[in-house]
Amino acid sequence: MSNVHLAKGSHQPAFPDDGKLRLYSMKFCPYAQRAHLVLDAKNIPYHVAYINLTEKPEWLQKVSALTKVPALEIPGHGESLIESLIIADYLDEKYPQHPLHSKDPLQKARDRILVERFDSFITPFYRIVFQRNQSGSPGAITELTNALDLYEKELRERKTKFFGGQRPGMLDYMIWPWCERSDSMKFILGDKYELDKVRFSELLKWKDEMQKDKAVKENYISPEDHFKYASLRLAGTPDYDFLAVVPPKKLRLS
Amino acid sequence: MSNVHLAKGSHQPAFPDDGKLRLYSMKFCPYAQRAHLVLDAKNIPYHVAYINLTEKPEWLQKVSALTKVPALEIPGHGESLIESLIIADYLDEKYPQHPLHSKDPLQKARDRILVERFDSFITPFYRIVFQRNQSGSPGAITELTNALDLYEKELRERKTKFFGGQRPGMLDYMIWPWCERSDSMKFILGDKYELDKVRFSELLKWKDEMQKDKAVKENYISPEDHFKYASLRLAGTPDYDFLAVVPPKKLRLS
Repeated sequence: MSNVHLAKGSHQPAFPDDGKLRLYSMKFCPYAQRAHLVLDAKNIPYHVAYINLTEKPEWLQKVSALTKVPALEIPGHGESLIESLIIADYLDEKYPQHPLHSKDPLQKARDRILVERFDSFITPFYRIVFQRNQSGSPGAITELTNALDLYEKELRERKTKFFGGQRPGMLDYMIWPWCERSDSMKFILGDKYELDKVRFSELLKWKDEMQKDKAVKENYISPEDHFKYASLRLAGTPDYDFLAVVPPKKLRLS
Repeated sequence: MSNVHLAKGSHQPAFPDDGKLRLYSMKFCPYAQRAHLVLDAKNIPYHVAYINLTEKPEWLQKVSALTKVPALEIPGHGESLIESLIIADYLDEKYPQHPLHSKDPLQKARDRILVERFDSFITPFYRIVFQRNQSGSPGAITELTNALDLYEKELRERKTKFFGGQRPGMLDYMIWPWCERSDSMKFILGDKYELDKVRFSELLKWKDEMQKDKAVKENYISPEDHFKYASLRLAGTPDYDFLAVVPPKKLRLS
């Protein structure tokens, strides 16, 4: 299947009838990336259809009632699952290989809280990326940096390479999409954004280790390309396909 | 322990050292009610401390870092769990009696999505309750009524008394707090709010059945009292204790 984003006027993809899961995704969506990371970390085979979120295909509502991505279609089971965290938990429960959540309910609950609390990083991050010259940014760098203290502290206390232990777990993968995007702030802020190497020593080591992970590598997009996507979107001219293997024009002709 | 809400200047409650869970709650908080419902449905013994959310006790941050309720303290385990859905899931995993979630990962995921989607009822509901004569209300009754169609359809398809089957499950309890409050809209809207008996026949039966449930009854507050609480809060003079057994003045003297 092509990785061009399907838009208004497109045909609903005809997936092979092989029982594999079908993920409706968008290449630059951090929430969709969560689903890819879990599927790839657990080596679950799946098909992907990428969706143009500006010009949504008419058929999208049939598979994702609220026309959201990520949406996970389970062949033979009607409507897709939505909400990245619910999809991730479903996959972890249904496919026992490489469990990502802790088996200890208390540790699992704490990790889920840390996923929720990562919003305190995500919110100022988006202020920086999408309100560049507006009033949203002041204070955002401090806010976002302070938010990371909690995660640095956690890693120090856990004394493990990843939040999940010797390999990435659910918390690692659920916060990763924004960590991958964080370096794109350098193109906006220059030297103003740099994590203190002492204050965030464990988190910086963690980031290096994450980038060596197979699932992370399979879904990796460079800071330059994240910045390019965000800039085009901010300008009102989003381009979903600049990384696509098949150029969009070719596809429209076929 | 008294059910008066502890405020600024109060002492941190000295719970007996009996290993029981400790829930920090607020009598009229629907999110806290979710935690009560799960604890009571599963017959888990616990202590409660009610918190005045307008004048928060100084010690609250020690047990709930973000000073939120509900917060569930697990004796001997440091910081409390927060987020009503995470608390509910934790309790269901840790205490296997009377399981509330479906054992089928797909059904569980679908139910969790239905809990999230109930926001489409909650949001217009709050517009009606807290923006009574302002611009928030127009369209809210229609929006909120339409949101319920999905739940009526679900109940019809499931052909069971409750979403969870022959007894209430997680979905039933997680959406109940707002269903309990829904009749308080009658004091604001009069006859303008009434669910069509044909269109919502299953949901209205469900509501009657829910009110007979032990956990629901143990935490029930009448529409009149919900309306009173909301009205006082809206007026900027919230009264957390008008249902408290010990009158607040007496407590402050002791």
